[in-house]
Amino acid sequence: MLLAALALGTVVPATAGETRIPEAAIETAAGLRDRALAENPGYAIIEELTTVIGPRMPGTEADARAVEWAKQKFEALGFDRVTTVPVTFDVWLRGEERAEILGTVPQPLKITALGGSVATPAEGIEAEVVEFPNLQALADAPDGSLEGKIAYISNRMQRFRDGRGYGPAVAARSTGAVEAARKGAIGLLIRSISTAEHRFPHTGQMRYEDGVARIPAAALANPDADQLSRLIALGEPVSVRLMLETMTPGEYTSHNVIGDLIGREAPEEMVVIGAHLDSWDLGTGALDDGAGIGITFAAGHLIGQLPERPRRTVRVIAFAAEEIGLLGARAYAQHEATRVREHVIAAESDFGAGRIYALRSNAKDEAWGAIEQIGDVLRPLGIETERGVGGPGPDIIPLATRGVTWAQLAQDGTLYFDYHHTADDTLDKIDAGDIDQQVAAYAVFAWLAAEAEGDFGSAPPGSD
Amino acid sequence: MLLAALALGTVVPATAGETRIPEAAIETAAGLRDRALAENPGYAIIEELTTVIGPRMPGTEADARAVEWAKQKFEALGFDRVTTVPVTFDVWLRGEERAEILGTVPQPLKITALGGSVATPAEGIEAEVVEFPNLQALADAPDGSLEGKIAYISNRMQRFRDGRGYGPAVAARSTGAVEAARKGAIGLLIRSISTAEHRFPHTGQMRYEDGVARIPAAALANPDADQLSRLIALGEPVSVRLMLETMTPGEYTSHNVIGDLIGREAPEEMVVIGAHLDSWDLGTGALDDGAGIGITFAAGHLIGQLPERPRRTVRVIAFAAEEIGLLGARAYAQHEATRVREHVIAAESDFGAGRIYALRSNAKDEAWGAIEQIGDVLRPLGIETERGVGGPGPDIIPLATRGVTWAQLAQDGTLYFDYHHTADDTLDKIDAGDIDQQVAAYAVFAWLAAEAEGDFGSAPPGSD
Ligand SMILES: [Zn+2]
Ligand SMILES: [Zn+2]
Repeated sequence: MLLAALALGTVVPATAGETRIPEAAIETAAGLRDRALAENPGYAIIEELTTVIGPRMPGTEADARAVEWAKQKFEALGFDRVTTVPVTFDVWLRGEERAEILGTVPQPLKITALGGSVATPAEGIEAEVVEFPNLQALADAPDGSLEGKIAYISNRMQRFRDGRGYGPAVAARSTGAVEAARKGAIGLLIRSISTAEHRFPHTGQMRYEDGVARIPAAALANPDADQLSRLIALGEPVSVRLMLETMTPGEYTSHNVIGDLIGREAPEEMVVIGAHLDSWDLGTGALDDGAGIGITFAAGHLIGQLPERPRRTVRVIAFAAEEIGLLGARAYAQHEATRVREHVIAAESDFGAGRIYALRSNAKDEAWGAIEQIGDVLRPLGIETERGVGGPGPDIIPLATRGVTWAQLAQDGTLYFDYHHTADDTLDKIDAGDIDQQVAAYAVFAWLAAEAEGDFGSAPPGSD
Repeated sequence: MLLAALALGTVVPATAGETRIPEAAIETAAGLRDRALAENPGYAIIEELTTVIGPRMPGTEADARAVEWAKQKFEALGFDRVTTVPVTFDVWLRGEERAEILGTVPQPLKITALGGSVATPAEGIEAEVVEFPNLQALADAPDGSLEGKIAYISNRMQRFRDGRGYGPAVAARSTGAVEAARKGAIGLLIRSISTAEHRFPHTGQMRYEDGVARIPAAALANPDADQLSRLIALGEPVSVRLMLETMTPGEYTSHNVIGDLIGREAPEEMVVIGAHLDSWDLGTGALDDGAGIGITFAAGHLIGQLPERPRRTVRVIAFAAEEIGLLGARAYAQHEATRVREHVIAAESDFGAGRIYALRSNAKDEAWGAIEQIGDVLRPLGIETERGVGGPGPDIIPLATRGVTWAQLAQDGTLYFDYHHTADDTLDKIDAGDIDQQVAAYAVFAWLAAEAEGDFGSAPPGSD
């Protein structure tokens, strides 16, 4: 029935208590959509960020440059108010890193430290590698069975449009070092959590556990994982030297940067869109998440060029320190903890630069008609409205946990994990036309949600 | 008329003085072709070489391991005689290397030293970068105009099936450092001579000239060249720190390794096929030229399994030190200088792992009918016979210069320069079915050329 309604277009009579979007706002939204496609305002922002700032690792001088850039960019793009929310964290930095196979088949391996990993001694560690097909197999190994060894988890991430191969694979990265240390291992290697066929190891955050030895952990590029597995399959013991230099220079305070288009009627109520400003250090963070910054900044800019401000505030947030644990998003949610209802709906662009194919939300039933009204304007962009599926972007999770309604403009992530968290995440991987489509979608979404009469269901849990 | 003959199949009556292949040999060739496709003997050889030996830089311990491997492999594959020809050369090795943009937009760049480059001082060199759209523009710059600067040549190699974009682009690599030094530059950066869209800088041999300062030279990965060009286009001076460590530890003697299937009637006459055993250090040399080794070793192996030896000797040569100037090929040609006519025809596989689409040769007119006979057996593999085009593989050039007739089994090189001379030249880039097709083609070619009655025109220049 939902599908039938979608196919025929959605004409639902307004009912008392239902959230509705006025017809005039919908006409304006169609104009926004067409301007986004004609004016290409997003790509240039991504180009500038990734070129002039480059990699934007939390706690580096580039982090500070990026924050200044975002403040100036919001102002240049015509936002009414630019504010910041501080985020303090412990900095982790990558230094030199290398690995090589030893013995009778010596050769270098392409590796990179997982984010948060401890360093090895300066001369590295040398040990025999024991392969496990997945994290569970490592967890099932007998205690002490890896004494003095390097554990190697070799499972390969699967490719899907919605990126659902990432979740099952990424546990090896997140908790592999803890499992390996429990068995006595002195180091961890994992196959990159990546669909790339190229020799780019894939970084990303890992964690330790109190009471369990902290062992160095690194990812192998997919071809190097293939090579290591082939050598191990030959049946002779294979030893590796792993050298990781990592630094923890101390505390740093970065900032979420917020650009507001102040609502003309209900300025205290906000529709939030955003992306994260930080990136890993290996690439220039073009797909992750320069794209999201360009898309949402440009969407706000287009709305700001309309003759009047939206009814509610449209807030664009450039989140800090997403990659090392959603730290900016957590600080923002904490900062706004008493204003859950005022955050009427929130969506983040943080899944690369592939086109959007679906609008999803956990909006309350009474607001679903309004979601479908938004979906009608998005449909010419190739976007369908889908109910009961999806979830918020990572930086929206802390808000959603507090009761803020989320929307998801779901992107095609087929190629995302070829580049994500690798040195190969650079501007040339982005198609400008794909960015236009997404700017259009975010502009339509933010404008219409801000114009809606009635809310989408944001409320602190248990408050109703 | 040639095309019509090809389309109809070639039935040319034998004439006095014409080289012809007996019908029985052609039937055997068809069987060889089908066995190659059924038995897949090539891929496993490539897999073993690239896995167990890995990168095979001339003058390294891996070079020595590769030579031993090739000798043993020829024996295991049933060749009658394994010999070697020594090749002595000065070794050049890559050490640490890095580059970064300085100033207000600091960020790392992916670079690699060109083969043969001198090192920088340990702390690197720091200088402003001056961009030139191509080598000619650099050559046209006024003398002294680059005093204290780093020259940067930014032209991009074009992609073609036959790889013809390489020649025009590669001059920037070969002679760019000489041109830059003539203008006073203290270093050279070039855009990689590569079609790759990934952050793999592309190495390859460069040269210096006596009387011109020897300056360090490196290639930028394509995305990094884009980035540097974008920053320069902003109009502010852009400075780079370039650090290259390179070593020249002295002389080394490697070996061409030769496997012979000794001819049953004319053992002193040879059909030569081969490939080069060495590779650059960055990848595992799977496409360049592990593929050629696997293809030609397997082709010889299939011929060796026939109930009788070919009329002439089939010689498979694993050439040494190709990448640093065809050194093994030159040594071989020198070693065989008095036996030009005995090398009846020669073909090398050294253009990656893409399928063969054409048979070409500079065979004499009286032998073209035999070439077309070979072409008829190759046609079911998707291979056409082409006259008056093409040229020999690199390691055949020194023989061809001395008058040996060449054949070329021209491969589809559309993707070759995405991987060639980069860290990404690894086994996963090879399709086993494509290798089968090429093993079939080389087996057919070598067998039929060895069975031919009459020669293909090999003769020292001016000897007729
Ligand atoms: Zn991200
Ligand atoms: Zn080659």
